[in-house]
Amino acid sequence: MDLPSMPAKVDPDEVTAVLDGRWAELRRGVREQMATEKFRDHTDLDIEAHRAQVLEQLGELAATGRPALGFASEYGGSDDVGGSITSFEMLGYGDLSLMVKAGVQWGLFGGAVQLLGTERHHTKYLRRIMDLDLLGCFAMTEHGHGSDVQHLHTTATYDPATREFVVDTPDPGATKEYIGNAARDGHMAVVFAQLITDGEGRGVHAFMVPIRSADGAPAPGVTIEDCGRKAGLNGVDNGRISFSQVRIPREALLNRFGDVAPDGSYSSPIESDGRRFFTMLGTLIRGRVSVAGSAGSATKRALVIAVRYAEVRRQFARPDGDEVVLLDYLAHQRKLLPALATSYALHFAQEGLVSTLNDIGEGPEEAQRELESRAAGIKAVATWHATATIQTAREACGGSGYLSENILAGLKADTDVFTTFEGDNTVLLQLVAKSLLTSYKEHFEDLSPLATARFVAEQLVGNVIEKTAARKVIDRFSDDERAIYDRAWQLSLFQDREEHLLEGVASRLRRATSPHVDAFDVFNDAQDHVLQAGRAHIHRVVLEAFVEAISRCEDADAKALLERVCDLYVLSNVEAERAWFLEHGRLTSNRSKAVIAAVNDLCKLLRPHARTLVDAFAIPDQFLAAPMLR
Amino acid sequence: MDLPSMPAKVDPDEVTAVLDGRWAELRRGVREQMATEKFRDHTDLDIEAHRAQVLEQLGELAATGRPALGFASEYGGSDDVGGSITSFEMLGYGDLSLMVKAGVQWGLFGGAVQLLGTERHHTKYLRRIMDLDLLGCFAMTEHGHGSDVQHLHTTATYDPATREFVVDTPDPGATKEYIGNAARDGHMAVVFAQLITDGEGRGVHAFMVPIRSADGAPAPGVTIEDCGRKAGLNGVDNGRISFSQVRIPREALLNRFGDVAPDGSYSSPIESDGRRFFTMLGTLIRGRVSVAGSAGSATKRALVIAVRYAEVRRQFARPDGDEVVLLDYLAHQRKLLPALATSYALHFAQEGLVSTLNDIGEGPEEAQRELESRAAGIKAVATWHATATIQTAREACGGSGYLSENILAGLKADTDVFTTFEGDNTVLLQLVAKSLLTSYKEHFEDLSPLATARFVAEQLVGNVIEKTAARKVIDRFSDDERAIYDRAWQLSLFQDREEHLLEGVASRLRRATSPHVDAFDVFNDAQDHVLQAGRAHIHRVVLEAFVEAISRCEDADAKALLERVCDLYVLSNVEAERAWFLEHGRLTSNRSKAVIAAVNDLCKLLRPHARTLVDAFAIPDQFLAAPMLR
Repeated sequence: MDLPSMPAKVDPDEVTAVLDGRWAELRRGVREQMATEKFRDHTDLDIEAHRAQVLEQLGELAATGRPALGFASEYGGSDDVGGSITSFEMLGYGDLSLMVKAGVQWGLFGGAVQLLGTERHHTKYLRRIMDLDLLGCFAMTEHGHGSDVQHLHTTATYDPATREFVVDTPDPGATKEYIGNAARDGHMAVVFAQLITDGEGRGVHAFMVPIRSADGAPAPGVTIEDCGRKAGLNGVDNGRISFSQVRIPREALLNRFGDVAPDGSYSSPIESDGRRFFTMLGTLIRGRVSVAGSAGSATKRALVIAVRYAEVRRQFARPDGDEVVLLDYLAHQRKLLPALATSYALHFAQEGLVSTLNDIGEGPEEAQRELESRAAGIKAVATWHATATIQTAREACGGSGYLSENILAGLKADTDVFTTFEGDNTVLLQLVAKSLLTSYKEHFEDLSPLATARFVAEQLVGNVIEKTAARKVIDRFSDDERAIYDRAWQLSLFQDREEHLLEGVASRLRRATSPHVDAFDVFNDAQDHVLQAGRAHIHRVVLEAFVEAISRCEDADAKALLERVCDLYVLSNVEAERAWFLEHGRLTSNRSKAVIAAVNDLCKLLRPHARTLVDAFAIPDQFLAAPMLR
Repeated sequence: MDLPSMPAKVDPDEVTAVLDGRWAELRRGVREQMATEKFRDHTDLDIEAHRAQVLEQLGELAATGRPALGFASEYGGSDDVGGSITSFEMLGYGDLSLMVKAGVQWGLFGGAVQLLGTERHHTKYLRRIMDLDLLGCFAMTEHGHGSDVQHLHTTATYDPATREFVVDTPDPGATKEYIGNAARDGHMAVVFAQLITDGEGRGVHAFMVPIRSADGAPAPGVTIEDCGRKAGLNGVDNGRISFSQVRIPREALLNRFGDVAPDGSYSSPIESDGRRFFTMLGTLIRGRVSVAGSAGSATKRALVIAVRYAEVRRQFARPDGDEVVLLDYLAHQRKLLPALATSYALHFAQEGLVSTLNDIGEGPEEAQRELESRAAGIKAVATWHATATIQTAREACGGSGYLSENILAGLKADTDVFTTFEGDNTVLLQLVAKSLLTSYKEHFEDLSPLATARFVAEQLVGNVIEKTAARKVIDRFSDDERAIYDRAWQLSLFQDREEHLLEGVASRLRRATSPHVDAFDVFNDAQDHVLQAGRAHIHRVVLEAFVEAISRCEDADAKALLERVCDLYVLSNVEAERAWFLEHGRLTSNRSKAVIAAVNDLCKLLRPHARTLVDAFAIPDQFLAAPMLR
């Protein structure tokens, strides 16, 4: 089959323009700043030196004012949520410890004060947080209750006699765990605890708790332990915090969604404890979105390095005696180019997500829930892509890739935890499926699988998602061998898969309503199916974002190139999942084999443009200064 | 469908007996020694302290006499090659830096002296090497010529006037790279260089070259550079070595396969330079086998930790209020149990390989080539399995898995390089396919893809491999829904896939004989197909080894358990590759879906035995002492 035509050469700047998108100017600014010596990403620091360097760089960031982007203008911010997240994403080109520490300080800690607190907290803290005059922690995760944050054990019991809350760690499993900024630098923490007043539990709320005295020693009643060495991110001082009857004033409650009066009576604009909690969590979505973005940046950095290496490193000779560069081998192209195409696709999906988040404001609740679901799914898919791709990039650089000086080892180690922090990916994909099954009409009342099964069973739903004409489009192309390059066919294939998977899951989970079955078992037996449905949804969303981005591209050559990159994204995805398409009659054997051949053809077609595609990321040179590329 | 029956409880010691196999007594001895405090695997050492500790532990190993196992008895060894490799494998339960350093000293350096040298080298060096009185390096890899060792650039030019060789590094690409023991401890190196005498190149030979003086400084003309920090294995002092006209006596040539007389005339028992080189390489197979074995040990260690964690860690509640342990979730079982089954399968394949290697001696050349091919393939499959499984184990332990104290982070970092050292996995799988295509009748004349394509094209071959009745067995079961648990059907499926893939590759590569095509292009376009064929072959070999091991098991309960583990190995493999089976009419859609369901069923069936299966590895407690398991 003839391949679609391609320009001989494409200007990388034109591709950069498409990639940079809506926050292009901000991106240029961050690139310029990060290109300076101060932001060097050293590969040979011991833990203490690394922590000190990252704190110093954090100060440099504070001085730019960029951390204020995401805060409210009345406290010196810029109300530019999208810009704020984009600048976190750009930090992902450099030392990821700095990105994470900045994320903890301004995204999680500062974000919680802004979004869960009220004016009294804003006035008192926001300026100091932006200026790095107050360093803080986000103390949610507990040792015994990782993803099940709704059931954490730390308590904050109101004592009307002194008008104070008593914060306590009742058992070792309630110790706050892996808390960034805790082991060394944080002086205050937003602590998530079960609020108890009038002898009654009111669910999880957030409290401002001082954890260190002015001299840096732990505050009275607070115990802090250093988590010690980690696989990566050793520039971040993660620690464990526990509380022994620590008293804080009533006003320390971040009281936007629930308050306790001096007499101990409780009030909230949201009646249900569960719904209140998930509304609170929903406001904290930015952290998850930032992780997906910076995982994307780290993945791009790894791909630039691996592609450049593959263009200089030679291995074995051709018949004419010339040694062949690695990237001329099909097996090597297959390692790097589909991953590169996926990085493009995820970039555009991320950009769309950030843009929606920026614009949504106090938008309708259904749209908020849809956004949360999309953020969860893109985070899962993007961070797994990062883990797999950086691993592949390391292997593609052989022994050189294993040396710390060549950057990839550190990238692998730093990003590894992204798949399980800010929400474990497996749990997140379940959330995605659940929200689809309930058509976004209901809240994430509860994260547990039991609740998912019961909920779906009770509230469902014949109309899983809006029916598309996907199947018809697929059938229409059944005799056309060019179909695999037809975007309508590709989109239909993705839509139809999603729809079919969701319907299958729905019909299985409906059995949980029967009184004769254990609802947990019904859910558990379908868990792999549920995860598959969540993934299929995100793949469709990502593809649509890619198609949308291409339509914005004005340069004809860049557009032609991106069309083929999109083909490679689609077809390598179809290739990976082709067993499902075959099993369900969506692909014939011949069409399936044609997809494999098309992936090979596209690798060959895009190989001459690989350098253009990675250069278009415009990553500052100092972050690509691997000695093996010299 | 009814699942096969299972005993309620199986004695792990009975399973250990099957796993320990032929070298059971040796395994018990190594376990006992490694259980001592001296072999603690610390997770918080800086590079220099780590290197010092590993050197000290190396001394402890030398004192046991076990490193002598693999050497000839006339020099104080035990002629027990299998025992020697098995003890390297067992070292893989502990600090992998120690395993690698031991492998460099006794496996690569000592092994080269024994297998490439003659009596004069044996008398002079072997005892000192065993006793650690002489530490050495294996200097083969060059900066510019990773896998293409036949074309390395270092030269050793004979000077008849002084009866010396002059060893030289003619260009920066010829620098010896990543050489273990070089940066700190090694005093001598086996250096691989192009031998030139009488103005004629005679191909790659090995030479004994002193690289340090008695005081530890680099020897005159030798430049040594430290490779610095690596992703892992920082207890090994890897370095770069280059030579500037370094003179060594004529007797320093390891002259078993080629010698230079005082007058400079060259002689060899093997005429062809290529064949001689690959015969030399073939003798060095032990290193590759040891890497596969210790990758297996590290993978088992990760699985024990992840399974134990999944049995204590609770997440979310059941309807009755009890929190559910992670391993009760299907998604979690799917992460760990198929990987565990594959570890069992690879264990038995490794044991069979070691046993054959032990017994083959100076066996027939065809058997030697078959063994080399099998070693290459098992190394590739086992180390990729290690990388994927340890990654999964880390993720399955969430944030805890990311802390160094919980061991998995170090395992991941240490084993990462296994996929690309001792032969890059992609290159190795190509070798496997090539040797199959030529029915083991010919040597690995050349590792390059060009040579592969040309060779196959010229020498081939209608009778790719011996025809089996595989297809008939598959067809016979086509109506029987129990077929997927039938071992004969399973074996046929694997055999038939291998056969079909090889025939397909052969017919594609045959096109390279046409004068109108570029042989390189023909090979390159088929590269993914070639790799797939190599992989399919190894999967079949591994399955057969598993079946064979089960037949040796005498305890009925252990046997029943292993049968189901074997089913899970087979069916999770078929599930992963089911697109191919569907495309080629070997599975119907219904049968394919039944395979997915069977993997789920087997996960549920084996879940209560997961602890037994990991305990049966009998890994010393100190290597499992992750605080998160307390």
